[in-house]
Amino acid sequence: MIKVIAKNYIKKDKIEEVLQATKELIEATVKEEGCIKYEMYQDIKDESILTMMEEWESMDALKNHSNSEHYRRIVPIIGEYSEKAAETNLYKKVI
Amino acid sequence: MIKVIAKNYIKKDKIEEVLQATKELIEATVKEEGCIKYEMYQDIKDESILTMMEEWESMDALKNHSNSEHYRRIVPIIGEYSEKAAETNLYKKVI
Repeated sequence: MIKVIAKNYIKKDKIEEVLQATKELIEATVKEEGCIKYEMYQDIKDESILTMMEEWESMDALKNHSNSEHYRRIVPIIGEYSEKAAETNLYKKVI
Repeated sequence: MIKVIAKNYIKKDKIEEVLQATKELIEATVKEEGCIKYEMYQDIKDESILTMMEEWESMDALKNHSNSEHYRRIVPIIGEYSEKAAETNLYKKVI
């Protein structure tokens, strides 16, 4: 299982737009093969930090996701509404 | 539910020590009241990034954790073995 943490730093006046765009991205993504979990979280102290927490069965499933129509259309929109580049880490569980 | 992502940047020659210390911390923590999940992940591309992913029933449960004997004893050890300060975010699910 591959866990992805994608931490986005959103412009304060674009949070609602990103939440709307993300809703559509999530609805399409959870139907993808190999998608275990795909959820958006908001930092309790800083509402402009919106982090996608994902779980994928394999690297292939994750690669297919990044080639999907909805990913290619929506993720750049989130990028446009960001203050700075997202921090994305791919993880494996160790303990 | 409160989700905590604690991203640690470990000195390359101290990874094993941190994994050992973390094992003990996890064994004690999962027994705590209100602890839903408490797991250590390693970045696939950079083995020195070790991130604790936690789920707690409430802020009170999380506060009790940070006052626990094992937390107060072990977390500073992880700090000593770190290149720079950890990045810890507390999250709530939004979508």
